[in-house]
Amino acid sequence: MFWGWGEPGAGPSLPGHAGEFLRSALGVDGSIVSAPVALSEVRLAPPALGEEVRRRLQEIVGAAHVREDPEARVLRCRGKSYLDLLAQRAGDCEAAPDAVVAPGDAAQVQAVLYACAEAGVAVVPFGGGTSVVGGLEPLRGRFGALISLDLGRLAGLMTVDARSLTAVLAAGTRLPEADRALAAHGLTLGHVPQSYEWATVGGCVATRSAGQSSAGRGRIEDNVVALRCATPMGELATLGAPATAAGPSVRELVVGSEGTLGAISEVTLRVFRLAASSRYEGWFFRTFEEGCAALRALVQAGVAPDVARLSDRDETAMSLALAGSAGLKARAGGAMLRARGYRDGCLLIAGWEGGAEALARRRAPGARLLRAGGAMAVGGGPGEAWRASRFAAPHLRDDLLDRGVLVETLETATSWSALGSLHRDVRSALHGALGDRVLVACHVSHVYATGTSLYFTVLTAQDRGDPVGQWRRAKAAASEAIAAAGATITHHHGVGRDHVPWLGAEAGPLGLELLRAVRERCDPAGVMNPGKLLA
Amino acid sequence: MFWGWGEPGAGPSLPGHAGEFLRSALGVDGSIVSAPVALSEVRLAPPALGEEVRRRLQEIVGAAHVREDPEARVLRCRGKSYLDLLAQRAGDCEAAPDAVVAPGDAAQVQAVLYACAEAGVAVVPFGGGTSVVGGLEPLRGRFGALISLDLGRLAGLMTVDARSLTAVLAAGTRLPEADRALAAHGLTLGHVPQSYEWATVGGCVATRSAGQSSAGRGRIEDNVVALRCATPMGELATLGAPATAAGPSVRELVVGSEGTLGAISEVTLRVFRLAASSRYEGWFFRTFEEGCAALRALVQAGVAPDVARLSDRDETAMSLALAGSAGLKARAGGAMLRARGYRDGCLLIAGWEGGAEALARRRAPGARLLRAGGAMAVGGGPGEAWRASRFAAPHLRDDLLDRGVLVETLETATSWSALGSLHRDVRSALHGALGDRVLVACHVSHVYATGTSLYFTVLTAQDRGDPVGQWRRAKAAASEAIAAAGATITHHHGVGRDHVPWLGAEAGPLGLELLRAVRERCDPAGVMNPGKLLA
Repeated sequence: MFWGWGEPGAGPSLPGHAGEFLRSALGVDGSIVSAPVALSEVRLAPPALGEEVRRRLQEIVGAAHVREDPEARVLRCRGKSYLDLLAQRAGDCEAAPDAVVAPGDAAQVQAVLYACAEAGVAVVPFGGGTSVVGGLEPLRGRFGALISLDLGRLAGLMTVDARSLTAVLAAGTRLPEADRALAAHGLTLGHVPQSYEWATVGGCVATRSAGQSSAGRGRIEDNVVALRCATPMGELATLGAPATAAGPSVRELVVGSEGTLGAISEVTLRVFRLAASSRYEGWFFRTFEEGCAALRALVQAGVAPDVARLSDRDETAMSLALAGSAGLKARAGGAMLRARGYRDGCLLIAGWEGGAEALARRRAPGARLLRAGGAMAVGGGPGEAWRASRFAAPHLRDDLLDRGVLVETLETATSWSALGSLHRDVRSALHGALGDRVLVACHVSHVYATGTSLYFTVLTAQDRGDPVGQWRRAKAAASEAIAAAGATITHHHGVGRDHVPWLGAEAGPLGLELLRAVRERCDPAGVMNPGKLLA
Repeated sequence: MFWGWGEPGAGPSLPGHAGEFLRSALGVDGSIVSAPVALSEVRLAPPALGEEVRRRLQEIVGAAHVREDPEARVLRCRGKSYLDLLAQRAGDCEAAPDAVVAPGDAAQVQAVLYACAEAGVAVVPFGGGTSVVGGLEPLRGRFGALISLDLGRLAGLMTVDARSLTAVLAAGTRLPEADRALAAHGLTLGHVPQSYEWATVGGCVATRSAGQSSAGRGRIEDNVVALRCATPMGELATLGAPATAAGPSVRELVVGSEGTLGAISEVTLRVFRLAASSRYEGWFFRTFEEGCAALRALVQAGVAPDVARLSDRDETAMSLALAGSAGLKARAGGAMLRARGYRDGCLLIAGWEGGAEALARRRAPGARLLRAGGAMAVGGGPGEAWRASRFAAPHLRDDLLDRGVLVETLETATSWSALGSLHRDVRSALHGALGDRVLVACHVSHVYATGTSLYFTVLTAQDRGDPVGQWRRAKAAASEAIAAAGATITHHHGVGRDHVPWLGAEAGPLGLELLRAVRERCDPAGVMNPGKLLA
């Protein structure tokens, strides 16, 4: 679906009772006020790929895999941010890639990059297409033509080492497909970002994906054992030792490089045994502060749940109002909460994975710490409801866009000590930029011994006159607040194009220079994903 | 002590009964056959520092902190490998640094690097001086003079964030000093390499130190939150977010850079609460394979001990024979072992740290898995004996050198699947190079979900005619076997000078190019630690 999140799970729709919430919280009446254009109405420039390079690319990947038809180009024109979807819905694809090139193996990826570097054709690697930070923006830089390098044909589980719990996967393998193949060996990726339905293994590595179960299973960079990355200067291939002191990590140079060095073709990941059992459950805290302190206690004691997701007051209220599964509200036990002083409280979803013994070993002391921290258990209902709808948000967003709602997210991370002030600062920056009738919801969803992430969701009535400017101002205000607080500009969405102005605040001027030096060594012509990561 | 490991714990000596073992295993009669020269006999070239740069350095750090006296120069002439000690004992310090410069703070470090880059003076950063891979070799490259940049005055705990469990430490802080300062806050580094007595915080970061409790507390790179590193092009300073998706990690470029980019001046580390209790204990396995399989089961189930150290048959025999604490032998219960078929078995030391609850939570299931894997518990005695002598080996080495013994170690890491053949290949390479009367002892001491380290100790009678060639041939044979197996050339000792020829086998040609590009951007003149890490 070129204008929204769409497909795989086909996705839930806004529940009937959401209209009431939209009206009271945002002043949006809930009727449909906007619709995406039809594919035939999308505006596209004529494909600009030169004849010689097209022929060369066709020789490499086969003629069928060099596509210049509107559908192929429009589908790979952008990622899935709010601004991306506004533009796609409006049919604004003038800058779309001139062609979509889909190599069939690592050698073809390498050959395509050689050809593009030589011909001066910009390359945007395309995995799942789920970037929400402008990572897929078709910026031509100083080049006359640009291709989308679709890695979807590099798919599948190549080898498994069940004894060492590692698996070699082709980079374009979608996460559900990887998990299906691994399940036959009793294994799983253990990596479940909200974009799970679309995301690819290589894309997760290229963007330093966190995954909802990062507390239990680690972030993707914790689980990359080795990788192969084709660059215009040849292949980068790293060794798969479990640990090494052999100099700075070359692997870490590729993780998070977002297609600016080359295209990852193959990844060796640490995988996990399929959990024999799991328990997802809800807990209520009276305040967000109390909940954060309790999560800190759990993670520092080594008993954090695999999934930990603590909503602040506004997000808890919104979740209860918007949740597709009406059960969440009922099962969270509104009456009980009111009675015990947890009304307007904060909901924690805790998900424990693992065999029965491992589960009991961590959950029992974890639950004791949660209770000691002021939490009230509300049972498995809210947990299972969350699990059932864990991929729902971007599907619901399509419905909200139809209804004229600005809906976007952003995330950061900081130390436990700085958490409270960062939460306040970002909220007030967003409120300052967007006015009173805005809902700023926030949750902690990735906990570490030293700190945590903060994930903000923003909803307000779209400024129909200048929707782009409306969000850009808000995003800039939030980003400035994050940089001023010394927090990271992105915990797991990546840099893409949108966060380029703020990368220097954390890497420092010399740090940027080093990243640039690496990029220049891999890609002297500068064809790889121009305008991303570094200015 | 310029010719050995020496001091702090003053160190244990070889026990009386060791002579018998040396005779039977190595054919060495145990009498003292060699002694180090006196300091006054050490051969030194006249200091070659130019007058102008010396004046400039004196202005920066103060005249008292630019030392050109023989003692200062000889003490910082090399690290502590077997070949280093042979050369130091022989008084061969012609190439010693021309001066030892000791800046008092980060700004002075920066100013010294600017001055040296401008004047063309090579710089070898010096922390604890414990490199065993030639990392401190005073190689001048194309420069006429070389200084040892002694970071020992940058010492102390700067700030603590007890809520976020992080601490900022000056880079030259020795580990025991850091732990003493942290203990006042109820905290500890949780980082205990065998070089603990001498090693500095910055040195551990620069060399990717693992620490004996890596299974429980992580390697140093897992615990570096942020750092500051002075380079000839200015300071690299990274942000301290607990996690980020903001591009490739600049921090990871500095970790393991071994002084080739600049000198680390300050490190923010994740620290740990002081353990309320701990238990170190011994277990016996009938075979090394059985022990490895059990450790794999523990780490993959998430219940590995903080310290796990499984000796193979030869190392177990050697430990029992050489252990300074005679108690180890008695307490391991020789008679019982024989009776139950564990004679010629393999000793595992398992150390569990943490509060009583955490300890019980991991130790109980861990012990069940050990028993299921064929282990027999031999109680706390061997564990406590190991803990008491955990820093002993390099002290004992001084005694062995006096007795004409070749004694050196090397380490690697690989997947659980490749472990058995790597163990065989490295052993046979060492036996092939050194002949029959050689003791090759090995242990697994750092376990990961996907694989483990292998640490080899080699003892044989020194070839008094060509001791250097004797070891070089053996080291090359072992390194070739490691590279051929696709294992890492170093799990925690670092690259230094000795492993340079094999770094390409794991980073690949383009990987080496990227590391070189980073180095050139930080240090265009090439003054930082010439000849190390990269050719």
